Amino acid sequence: MLHVARQVGEMMSKYWTVASYPEETLSEANFEMKEAAQEKPGPGEFLIETLYLIVTPPLRMAVGTGGISGNPLPLGSVMNGTGIGKVIASNHDAFAVGDLVQGGLGWREHVVSDGATKVPVERINPREDLPFQTSLHVMGASGATAYVGLYDLGLPRVGDTVFVTAAAGTVGATVCQLAKLSGCKVVGSTGTDEKCDWLTGTLGMDGAINYKKENVGERLGELCPRGINIVFDNVGGAALDDALANISQGARVVLCGAPSQYEVDGAWYGPTNYFNLVYREASMRGFYIFNHRHRFKEAYARLGELITTQQLSYAEDVLGGIEQVPTALVRVLNGDNFGTQLVKIN
Amino acid sequence: MLHVARQVGEMMSKYWTVASYPEETLSEANFEMKEAAQEKPGPGEFLIETLYLIVTPPLRMAVGTGGISGNPLPLGSVMNGTGIGKVIASNHDAFAVGDLVQGGLGWREHVVSDGATKVPVERINPREDLPFQTSLHVMGASGATAYVGLYDLGLPRVGDTVFVTAAAGTVGATVCQLAKLSGCKVVGSTGTDEKCDWLTGTLGMDGAINYKKENVGERLGELCPRGINIVFDNVGGAALDDALANISQGARVVLCGAPSQYEVDGAWYGPTNYFNLVYREASMRGFYIFNHRHRFKEAYARLGELITTQQLSYAEDVLGGIEQVPTALVRVLNGDNFGTQLVKIN
Repeated sequence: MLHVARQVGEMMSKYWTVASYPEETLSEANFEMKEAAQEKPGPGEFLIETLYLIVTPPLRMAVGTGGISGNPLPLGSVMNGTGIGKVIASNHDAFAVGDLVQGGLGWREHVVSDGATKVPVERINPREDLPFQTSLHVMGASGATAYVGLYDLGLPRVGDTVFVTAAAGTVGATVCQLAKLSGCKVVGSTGTDEKCDWLTGTLGMDGAINYKKENVGERLGELCPRGINIVFDNVGGAALDDALANISQGARVVLCGAPSQYEVDGAWYGPTNYFNLVYREASMRGFYIFNHRHRFKEAYARLGELITTQQLSYAEDVLGGIEQVPTALVRVLNGDNFGTQLVKIN
Repeated sequence: MLHVARQVGEMMSKYWTVASYPEETLSEANFEMKEAAQEKPGPGEFLIETLYLIVTPPLRMAVGTGGISGNPLPLGSVMNGTGIGKVIASNHDAFAVGDLVQGGLGWREHVVSDGATKVPVERINPREDLPFQTSLHVMGASGATAYVGLYDLGLPRVGDTVFVTAAAGTVGATVCQLAKLSGCKVVGSTGTDEKCDWLTGTLGMDGAINYKKENVGERLGELCPRGINIVFDNVGGAALDDALANISQGARVVLCGAPSQYEVDGAWYGPTNYFNLVYREASMRGFYIFNHRHRFKEAYARLGELITTQQLSYAEDVLGGIEQVPTALVRVLNGDNFGTQLVKIN
């Protein structure tokens, strides 16, 4: 239902709120779109028009009660979301009309920020030779996550076997390609034959497993006969367990995400093969990318160079209009997107 | 049932074989004691008389089919076991009558070895100021495990909070005391009030949790309000999960053992809170102590110094006679032992 309360001459703006928590599987019905007169920027504030939102599985946790993080947004809150916007009115010395900004804009067409505590955003200066919205993914936190996770935690060596879950996702596909450039053998898992073909065809990976059709543990045994040196896990659940059963001596298991568990209320799937870390003298590590900001400059320079020289590919899956944002989240939770799920708002 | 087939003048010797695999909980009935004429040492061989056997929870896996290791000894095999023995007859240049040797003697009163491939053993030269059987525990692999696991993997810093499971066991109690000497706050979990009292009283630890009576997660929250920097896990299962829920930023989780799972047929308990490794940027690592032999010399020198200067305590729980070995294993699996479980054979 759309609530409208407009006054003549006011700018109206749409946004999505959390209407209910999912019983189990999230659906569009868990959100409610509203429209209201847009707040005007006060002193030291500026008005942002949202251009793109990125929609990723961790957003599911904002409306979930499961796992160790279970701390959902209050009902009625504007839904969380990261996006890029353009400053369209400003009373702030450091933000001018026309500036591009990025941050937690939320699922809304417009938002007022003071650049700091009220809707924190940062001004961005994307490379001119790349679409600016790549700052939301491969030239942003996802790209940095792949870069830091692989190089700083995974410690790839020439000849290593690397297994990447959710390998066709933004982080996964970047990890796959960086690992291949480092001289590794790379196997990825994903949920459709089309994505498998993209991994082994377009991206040139050594193997791909369709986890919805194949036995991941058996296929890993076939594709990685000497064991896995680096697991880069973007999925959690059974896939992580299958990976742990196939690690080699001294393996590094990099924990990045667990979207297979984000819909789980209560306890998550614990990896029953964790004790193979003992038998294989392996390690399992997690990280929070925004504690590694000192690595971003190097990461973006390298990623940008690789993209512009056609050594690194990325895929985008773009829906249009604020109305599509919940649908985009349902898509990514089902794995129905192909590439980074974006919604073009304006 | 005791089978006897003796000839006049032969030396008879008793040993235990695997009679059946436990349905669930191991009992003495899973083993059968036999007696037979003792094999004589051939050329290049020597005869060992077993003095002490050490009985530890991992022995359970020798008769189990669960977990990722499930590969039990064939029925009828002599049961595995590590012990110290004395050479009582020798046709081997490097082993003389009277030498003390240590290795996988098995649950038997005597055994013939060639020192290498046939019952591999090493000659030991225990410190004269310590009982020789300490080479089976605090001055042996268990002590080295505590030393390497804590210092090389746990990386203790002054002021760190350390949580040790099975803290009254050989490895656990050594880790506790070493961590305390390193300036850490140390909390341990164990299964009886008597052991808790020993930890906080005799050993001077900062806290002890009786996991059979108390809620470990809640107590950890109370005892470790700033979170746990180092988890040294000798137990697995729910205790590891409770520990993971209470780790602090950058924590190191050292995996040593999982006796809570050794009786489990099929999949082990997977730690459902493993994803806290991501939230806390923590690591979880396993190790195999015999890949760290280069650290043994330093470890034994330091541990010996600490024991002889009354800075490090250990406890032994000694049963007598080959007949008692299965009972000793039942005891350690139930946590009924107090200190290292030894059986004095001769």
